[in-house]
Amino acid sequence: MPFIKNAWYVAAWGDEIENGAPAGRVIAGQPVVLYRRADGAVVALEDRCSHRCAPLSKGRVEGDAVRCWYHGLLFGQDGACLEMPGQDTIPPGFEIRHYPVVEAEGWVWVWLGDPALAGENRVPSCKLDEGGIPYRSGCLDYAAHYELINDNLCDLSHVAYVHETTLARDATDWVQRKADYTNIDDGVEVARWIPGSQPLPLPGLPERVDIRSSYTFYIPGVMSLLIAYYPLGTAEAVNYGSPESTPIFALRNVHGITPVDERSTRYHFGVSLPIYSGPAEALDMAIGMVTHAFGEDKQTIEDQQRTLEMFPDVVLRNTIHDTALMRVRRLISNKLKKEQAETSGV
Amino acid sequence: MPFIKNAWYVAAWGDEIENGAPAGRVIAGQPVVLYRRADGAVVALEDRCSHRCAPLSKGRVEGDAVRCWYHGLLFGQDGACLEMPGQDTIPPGFEIRHYPVVEAEGWVWVWLGDPALAGENRVPSCKLDEGGIPYRSGCLDYAAHYELINDNLCDLSHVAYVHETTLARDATDWVQRKADYTNIDDGVEVARWIPGSQPLPLPGLPERVDIRSSYTFYIPGVMSLLIAYYPLGTAEAVNYGSPESTPIFALRNVHGITPVDERSTRYHFGVSLPIYSGPAEALDMAIGMVTHAFGEDKQTIEDQQRTLEMFPDVVLRNTIHDTALMRVRRLISNKLKKEQAETSGV
Amino acid sequence: MPFIKNAWYVAAWGDEIENGAPAGRVIAGQPVVLYRRADGAVVALEDRCSHRCAPLSKGRVEGDAVRCWYHGLLFGQDGACLEMPGQDTIPPGFEIRHYPVVEAEGWVWVWLGDPALAGENRVPSCKLDEGGIPYRSGCLDYAAHYELINDNLCDLSHVAYVHETTLARDATDWVQRKADYTNIDDGVEVARWIPGSQPLPLPGLPERVDIRSSYTFYIPGVMSLLIAYYPLGTAEAVNYGSPESTPIFALRNVHGITPVDERSTRYHFGVSLPIYSGPAEALDMAIGMVTHAFGEDKQTIEDQQRTLEMFPDVVLRNTIHDTALMRVRRLISNKLKKEQAETSGV
Repeated sequence: MPFIKNAWYVAAWGDEIENGAPAGRVIAGQPVVLYRRADGAVVALEDRCSHRCAPLSKGRVEGDAVRCWYHGLLFGQDGACLEMPGQDTIPPGFEIRHYPVVEAEGWVWVWLGDPALAGENRVPSCKLDEGGIPYRSGCLDYAAHYELINDNLCDLSHVAYVHETTLARDATDWVQRKADYTNIDDGVEVARWIPGSQPLPLPGLPERVDIRSSYTFYIPGVMSLLIAYYPLGTAEAVNYGSPESTPIFALRNVHGITPVDERSTRYHFGVSLPIYSGPAEALDMAIGMVTHAFGEDKQTIEDQQRTLEMFPDVVLRNTIHDTALMRVRRLISNKLKKEQAETSGV
Repeated sequence: MPFIKNAWYVAAWGDEIENGAPAGRVIAGQPVVLYRRADGAVVALEDRCSHRCAPLSKGRVEGDAVRCWYHGLLFGQDGACLEMPGQDTIPPGFEIRHYPVVEAEGWVWVWLGDPALAGENRVPSCKLDEGGIPYRSGCLDYAAHYELINDNLCDLSHVAYVHETTLARDATDWVQRKADYTNIDDGVEVARWIPGSQPLPLPGLPERVDIRSSYTFYIPGVMSLLIAYYPLGTAEAVNYGSPESTPIFALRNVHGITPVDERSTRYHFGVSLPIYSGPAEALDMAIGMVTHAFGEDKQTIEDQQRTLEMFPDVVLRNTIHDTALMRVRRLISNKLKKEQAETSGV
Repeated sequence: MPFIKNAWYVAAWGDEIENGAPAGRVIAGQPVVLYRRADGAVVALEDRCSHRCAPLSKGRVEGDAVRCWYHGLLFGQDGACLEMPGQDTIPPGFEIRHYPVVEAEGWVWVWLGDPALAGENRVPSCKLDEGGIPYRSGCLDYAAHYELINDNLCDLSHVAYVHETTLARDATDWVQRKADYTNIDDGVEVARWIPGSQPLPLPGLPERVDIRSSYTFYIPGVMSLLIAYYPLGTAEAVNYGSPESTPIFALRNVHGITPVDERSTRYHFGVSLPIYSGPAEALDMAIGMVTHAFGEDKQTIEDQQRTLEMFPDVVLRNTIHDTALMRVRRLISNKLKKEQAETSGV
């Protein structure tokens, strides 16, 4: 089962790519080397020297180029071989692939597919650093297929169980109350109320609030979640529909789920507090809570991966909570089929 | 190469299954969750939620049922889905398999095959706790196919080499003297004398004894061994046949060899002292000796497993000591063929 | 992809095979047990008991034979089964393979293929201990295919990069100056000058020397390298050809690259100082430098192995430095094809 090619994948947090140091990542099965040019822009190339297949990510950045540290071949930002030590001319066939790159929302995004299609497709908007506000970020390496992580994010009813004592606290409506779903081209928008709930334990928040959880999920695996707190009674006042007033608190939580291979995934997450009048230290508290909770998800999902491998013929079944999950799985499956049909010339 | 289905497998020691805590085991390739009902009886279900395949062994016991700790589905002791949080009706197809269970001889036994056949087949009798006497138990996880452990137990001539300094001491007749073999329906009985030998170093035993070793082996992998000590001269007096007098000492040693997959096995062992007039602490000494000796077997058998994998075309050959081994291998092979023929409708 | 059979492989350093202790090695996919007879000569047998496939390398040496430590079968130096405890006669079919062995140049060499061909083929001459001079040796276990290590040794232009700060120091001509290549039956001879270079930091050497590097590579994977220092100007005086005078310093460095399986290799290396007037301790310094540098190679080559596995369809390309590498790869490939054709009866 291959991965979608024509999509923007989160390759890394921008601050993972330091000046002068190439970084190797495997994205949807493709080894990619990322490095910063002299002007700071990120370059993405195949992570292999075309000579004997040593990884360029173990090489050295020289200006806008990267030098393989086995026999010294130098590659430019377009993948062309620029130098072959001990040899005056460079024969054809030594060029390697380069990939479109965008740095936005704190992330380095890479496009693995047809470069001609990259420009037509916007990088998903996550609004993590909207208005230049500060954020905190982290990464987790999962021993699981990326769609299991998608599934987890698309069915937040799990919060009542997996995060019983951390995120859910007494908010049992995570599982009882229905969500509203809106399809978008490349994903789905989901919103629900959890009224009369205990807020996260950050300084200066009231004892009880109406929580509005709303997120946008973009395939293959990007999600931007807003957790907003409103005064008690707001949910009922808007008839459990979309609120028009400004919340008293909002936490943004973004997720970049990047497949590595069939059994492993790199999970990038970040948190900001776009609406909050408490102390600046709360941002560190918030990323601490999120990091802890994502460890709970990781445990659950890796258990699920192992169990799935033990039941190779199992049919997964859906409940009332799986509307977004099914939408996302169907979009991925359809896009994959389309790409495969195009590749095979059908 | 599959495993026998229609057989009682040792799933766990009874004290491994605590009240309120589900326990996951893999038995002959099948993940099984074990838990105790409110009345203490053990339930065995497929270890997967029918929703998204999370393992129920990471869930919570509620009365006679177990709740998945991903999205909260509840399963009864017959495998029926009883609750689906957030949803009033439960659609068909959410039930999972349940397995016949017996708790006896200190062990939890599970029947993986056709439930209709379970009742006709008695759980093997091991007599570990005969008359309510105390026993000690342990487990080892082997990186080896379970039949290699069967082989080891069915040819005790290895005691003279593998356990040279621990169990054998100077009892070289483990390898020199022939054993007597008696076929039973599902296995074999084996007995031999090792006359004039040094006993195990437990308090109050004479310097030299005639050892009578007798065991029953039941396929797929259960063995009950009795090591009995008689006064010097007993073996000769009964012409190396079956003794009629009561021994001066007896140690019971049971073995439950449960395949996990083609390359791993869970080995359950226990010891009791049905005839012994020495101090109670000797039971702890005895399990200590057995545990140490089984570590010697484990080393040998895992080496053998690795070597077999390096010689994929090797033909194993038999010596005069392999009578019981061949009987057990043939019974397993015949039963497997019979099950496969039935499954394929032949 | 199999390995060459009809070749002498380095199985171990002689001092790895101690009196009385059998040693297991896997050579080109074949498990082999090595042990010393009563007279000290090394015996090589298949590392399996013909009874139940326990490894003989976990057994015990008895005179000229080795006893399996599972059920006690004894095997002679020709692979015949000599004893079967508890049994008077030994049925046919219990013999195992024995392999031709030579101990020379500090190494134990084993011939895996047709024994009739072993005598016709000389063990490669490495001259490590020429004239009985002392040497130092070491081993590295690589997670890489052995031909990648061959490649590394056959293209010393990598010294300027991989060993930039250790072996190369300021000797950039490792990559700039062309080498001279001479084909031999089973390999290639390569020599080059690196004039005006800094010598290795051993006591008593001049500040600058003309370095003459010359090596012979024998397939499947044996290399003998001589690093000789000449007074400045020697290279130019001989028109960058073969020097006739005696060097002021010479270091011998031998390499025995022995495939274990498709992804692992045992690398044996040794150092002596055939021409050197400095202190005896310099030999320990020299093996220290070599060991450190070979750690740099190991890192590079294992990275390369992983990258190759990520690009299963990649075509490796060659530069001007790959003349010896291509010769060695072609000889190996041709010999393999020849052996396969003979085996399949063509």
